[in-house]
Amino acid sequence: MSVIVVGSMAFDAIETPFGKSDKIVGGAATYIAWSASNFTKPIQQISVVGGDFPQEELDTLKARGVQLDGVQIKKDKKSFFWKGRYHMDMNTRDTLETQLNVLGEFEPVVPDNFQDADILMLGNLSPTVQLGVIEQLKKRPKLVVLDTMNFWMETAMEDLEKVIAKVDVLLVNDSEARQLSGQYSLVGAAKEILKMGPKYLIIKKGEHGALLFHKDHVFFAPALPLEEVFDPTGAGDTFAGGFVGYLDSTKDFSFEGMKTAIIVGSAIASFCVEKFGTTRLRELTRQEIDERLQEFIDLVSFDISLVSR
Amino acid sequence: MSVIVVGSMAFDAIETPFGKSDKIVGGAATYIAWSASNFTKPIQQISVVGGDFPQEELDTLKARGVQLDGVQIKKDKKSFFWKGRYHMDMNTRDTLETQLNVLGEFEPVVPDNFQDADILMLGNLSPTVQLGVIEQLKKRPKLVVLDTMNFWMETAMEDLEKVIAKVDVLLVNDSEARQLSGQYSLVGAAKEILKMGPKYLIIKKGEHGALLFHKDHVFFAPALPLEEVFDPTGAGDTFAGGFVGYLDSTKDFSFEGMKTAIIVGSAIASFCVEKFGTTRLRELTRQEIDERLQEFIDLVSFDISLVSR
Repeated sequence: MSVIVVGSMAFDAIETPFGKSDKIVGGAATYIAWSASNFTKPIQQISVVGGDFPQEELDTLKARGVQLDGVQIKKDKKSFFWKGRYHMDMNTRDTLETQLNVLGEFEPVVPDNFQDADILMLGNLSPTVQLGVIEQLKKRPKLVVLDTMNFWMETAMEDLEKVIAKVDVLLVNDSEARQLSGQYSLVGAAKEILKMGPKYLIIKKGEHGALLFHKDHVFFAPALPLEEVFDPTGAGDTFAGGFVGYLDSTKDFSFEGMKTAIIVGSAIASFCVEKFGTTRLRELTRQEIDERLQEFIDLVSFDISLVSR
Repeated sequence: MSVIVVGSMAFDAIETPFGKSDKIVGGAATYIAWSASNFTKPIQQISVVGGDFPQEELDTLKARGVQLDGVQIKKDKKSFFWKGRYHMDMNTRDTLETQLNVLGEFEPVVPDNFQDADILMLGNLSPTVQLGVIEQLKKRPKLVVLDTMNFWMETAMEDLEKVIAKVDVLLVNDSEARQLSGQYSLVGAAKEILKMGPKYLIIKKGEHGALLFHKDHVFFAPALPLEEVFDPTGAGDTFAGGFVGYLDSTKDFSFEGMKTAIIVGSAIASFCVEKFGTTRLRELTRQEIDERLQEFIDLVSFDISLVSR
């Protein structure tokens, strides 16, 4: 039992209306690994970093059960770097700087000991790289989950469609679902997207929660109403990490199993935004997670017997 | 057992990206009465109409258990009229025309046979009129619910604050909650607003559902993801009507009781938007309501035992 995670391990510099970070550790695969490792091990990481990526970060991840055999270290090059600034609503942001660095020429190699993974989590990355990993796997994992973003819809749609056709679960946000489908209504968008290949579609709506679509069924997972969102960076990746980590621990890949996994993902993501970068994820305890899960249960629980009287 | 409903009974002309209505029957109190009368009777209506308001509408409401003793009919005057156009997102709209007519000089009179109501539902209307009704009641109803909007915050804040201080439940949408509290975060906004008097605050987020705040507790009711929203006019009033109508039928005014009532209000509101004006509410059957309630239950239900393993 294991989860392969493909994605960036990188540096971010973040500005929000409430503060500003230095160059800190980030990247989709980093957040996913921190989040998923709360629930399962090993996490089998496929990524690329430069010589500037802190050894301490790699050691800490390893100690949490993250296998780094698939992480290429390009000693004389620099890690991917993103600098961005969030607007007051914390939902929209401007990219101030992007340095592709090692990510520009990344050719993923799947190590032999990763060949038996139950779940493949394709974090947000070039569809070419994502396809490359799928093609190197000798046996299709039981569950393939894909996260992507509008950038790839605009620059690599043909490859992206190929990846989408091969996955079980697609994760996008609401505006990306509209862009991908050409439908304004999310129900209409889901119908179109499910025709493209995935059996499950998760539409993330940030502070408004997430929707899971499967055939004619829909499930809604709320976001926890928060008094303060300090830094939303990585919340979507953290959500994805909690989702696949939890699923790998239950092996229940049914619609019912995914509902619970989405609640778990939402709960972990609600921690992520409380501090800059991965700070909050690093200090998270199992008790805090259980308490937060109970808050989610309380948030949507009502007495069904009252309604049916 | 009865619910007093105060609000406009009026005409609307509506344009949406999908169609255009003639001058049709509308008004907050009309929607509330149609919605609430699915669950309880009598509804005791306090409003004012002109000689142009259709007798057939009054007769139909009466047949549903709506008492019209408090509805003043100004034979030689015209009913309130609102004309508006919705934007593509169906969440925002422009007012194209407003004719106050009889509403401009409305002085509500509470009939003697309305004095024993358990619930007072103050639909969106001038705070002066709302205050006038509260002051005429010899005995405070067990539950006073207030709906209002940004217009009154901008033009009659002093009177509005007086009304807010006297009610048990306040209903506003998310931008109104921010405006009223000066807080961007809805959790922060709720804290401020609950200091103004109400014991319960419901923040309506349209397609993103509704939040119920009470002390340190919060409950989230989703909106049903809809493929098509045909006309959102009156959805908030319909929500309020279902909420108070259901509460009057259970008399459970606790936090738990209100959670269920919000789900019921959301369910009825999800019908309202399917056709122009009150069309859909007029043809609604009990079976349809029960089926829709089941859809809401399915939408948020997940296996709690899975999470707590």
